[in-house]
Amino acid sequence: MKLNIGVLPGDGIGPEVTAQAVKVLKAIAMEFNHVFTFEKALVGGVAIEKTGTALPDETVEICKRADAVLFGAIGNTKYDEDPDAEVRPEQGLLGLRKALGLHTNIRPVIAYEDLLNKSSLKVKAIKDTNLVIYRELTGGIYFGKRHLSDDGNTASDVCEYQRFEIERIAHAAFKAAQSRKRKLTLVDKANVLESSRLWRRVVKDIAKQYSDVKIEYTYIDNAAMDLIINPKQFDVILTENMFGDILSEEASVIVGSIGLLASASIGDEHVMFEPIHGAYTKAANKGIANPIASILSAAMLLDHFGLDEEANRVREGVDKSLKLHITTPDLNNKYDHISTTKVGDFIEDFIHNPDETNLN
Amino acid sequence: MKLNIGVLPGDGIGPEVTAQAVKVLKAIAMEFNHVFTFEKALVGGVAIEKTGTALPDETVEICKRADAVLFGAIGNTKYDEDPDAEVRPEQGLLGLRKALGLHTNIRPVIAYEDLLNKSSLKVKAIKDTNLVIYRELTGGIYFGKRHLSDDGNTASDVCEYQRFEIERIAHAAFKAAQSRKRKLTLVDKANVLESSRLWRRVVKDIAKQYSDVKIEYTYIDNAAMDLIINPKQFDVILTENMFGDILSEEASVIVGSIGLLASASIGDEHVMFEPIHGAYTKAANKGIANPIASILSAAMLLDHFGLDEEANRVREGVDKSLKLHITTPDLNNKYDHISTTKVGDFIEDFIHNPDETNLN
Ligand SMILES: CC(C)[C@H](C(=O)O)[C@@H](O)C(=O)O
Ligand SMILES: CC(C)[C@H](C(=O)O)[C@@H](O)C(=O)O
Repeated sequence: MKLNIGVLPGDGIGPEVTAQAVKVLKAIAMEFNHVFTFEKALVGGVAIEKTGTALPDETVEICKRADAVLFGAIGNTKYDEDPDAEVRPEQGLLGLRKALGLHTNIRPVIAYEDLLNKSSLKVKAIKDTNLVIYRELTGGIYFGKRHLSDDGNTASDVCEYQRFEIERIAHAAFKAAQSRKRKLTLVDKANVLESSRLWRRVVKDIAKQYSDVKIEYTYIDNAAMDLIINPKQFDVILTENMFGDILSEEASVIVGSIGLLASASIGDEHVMFEPIHGAYTKAANKGIANPIASILSAAMLLDHFGLDEEANRVREGVDKSLKLHITTPDLNNKYDHISTTKVGDFIEDFIHNPDETNLN
Repeated sequence: MKLNIGVLPGDGIGPEVTAQAVKVLKAIAMEFNHVFTFEKALVGGVAIEKTGTALPDETVEICKRADAVLFGAIGNTKYDEDPDAEVRPEQGLLGLRKALGLHTNIRPVIAYEDLLNKSSLKVKAIKDTNLVIYRELTGGIYFGKRHLSDDGNTASDVCEYQRFEIERIAHAAFKAAQSRKRKLTLVDKANVLESSRLWRRVVKDIAKQYSDVKIEYTYIDNAAMDLIINPKQFDVILTENMFGDILSEEASVIVGSIGLLASASIGDEHVMFEPIHGAYTKAANKGIANPIASILSAAMLLDHFGLDEEANRVREGVDKSLKLHITTPDLNNKYDHISTTKVGDFIEDFIHNPDETNLN
């Protein structure tokens, strides 16, 4: 298969972790006789520094002509601390999601057997967790009208949803549930928000077409609690943009490190794959960033193109690295100095020699 | 002291738990020679059934002339399942918060030594947690304009904040931090929302007046994760309405049961005290509801009027009930059949005879 992949490393630890994912994809291409080409582009804080904007036109073009985009991370404490900055790294990511129409963000949350004891949650609470969050990605308060009054004393953001925006991700989520444990939980705040009531109405309607899927409705405050009391009760969680952001980062605690969570962002014409973690400016260039989330995002990319064996090979490599504790410090590896690159190298080696790889 | 207390039991388990709090307040009045009078009023689903509205005028009047209000819970699965209902129990609670101007909601989160093993979180992660959430309660998306288009295909909610709304709760939160561990964490989503950037700007400004308090800024997605990885890092969490709702319910996991979390809602002229849990229709009238959150809300009421010894007596009673496992089933008591009323009776007895009370 020929794939042209846009690579957007972005800020902070983005470049380091993305380099490992690219390394892994190159190994897969070599091993399975594919032709993957990579085209790099600027986004986020680095793009602001070089071009004055967080999302240069050229970047959008590169992404549009690519078969898939691999995204690193964006963000910079410099902007976080300055609420007055008009140009912000996040505009790169949000602009890209919108420009590419990436409405359906899929975030799997799987408790790895070998990492159960890394979590702040008890093993018995998280063991066997296997859920997936379907987060709407191009609507809601992330993309509504914003306003700041001239005197600077009043600020507002609008959370708006349209029926079709809910329908398309709901269908995707129900279909996913059908191939999984046949349960879907809609998370909203329908006891307060009009937009949530629209979600509940639309999803209730669509549920009729998926009578083999058990549907539950819950409020975001409740969900934030239930997710850590008993994550095993969930199969597919469907939710709007902001609630999905919160729940998925919270869910990383189940897995033991946010450095492990991958995601796929699917649109009608374009697809992008990105770790759910941020840029962690402070950790950049120290070789301590966990590349697994980025590598697993690459595996989701392979999934998307039906390259099942290839995706599995990557996941087996990840599993083996975890089992052998070839992990970065966020997972408290028992060997010293296992760097971002070392983890990538190990998984690359595994892809070439799945039966032989061991700690070298 | 003379206190006229408005009592709004509300829906579901509200009446059962509120009855225990009233019992406890009566015992305190008797033991410490105060005159507490109680005036009941309707709110929520029960008010809808009897009067057609979730917040009858009479209820607002009773609350306004009371020195303090004790609130139970509102909500009913009947309405939860019907996104089209125009009259909803929640309107009672939200309307009351607005009518009484209860802008500052204080939600303490304390890990009880005797309950550490009840949590799904590891003991070492939660031990010694003692934080408090300052949740803005009368602004934001809870009270912004809502809209549903005539064709029913578009719905929206506005999240708006004004400078003075942020200032008043920020001052309260900084003052609280000064009498605690001198740390304040502002939780927002300033990398996306204009209203959050206003929060960050205003709080940054106010922070200068509290130079003895260490201030940190974090995004809601990060906070939802950090809160359960290492809750001990927090002292005072300051946040807007919706984020406070989510974080505080999530934080209940630290304490072991949502049936333990109390709150105080403070306005310029009125005060209300309420458990953070909901109505749990399914648990109603079974004698299984945990009255501790309501009883601890009564303790916060006593605090508010400077009745420190009285409040302490209530808290000692609660501590003792926990130590002796006189607890409802949510805390897996080791004795059978310890009902809502039994827990209330135990704490009432303790108030009268603090040195003698034991399981009877
Ligand atoms: C960086 C930020 C704008 C982004 C979001 O909130 O969507 C991130 O937290 C994510 O989850 O992808
Ligand atoms: C019942 C509901 C409207 C309410 C809220 O969201 O504020 C509740 O969850 C709370 O936290 O007091």
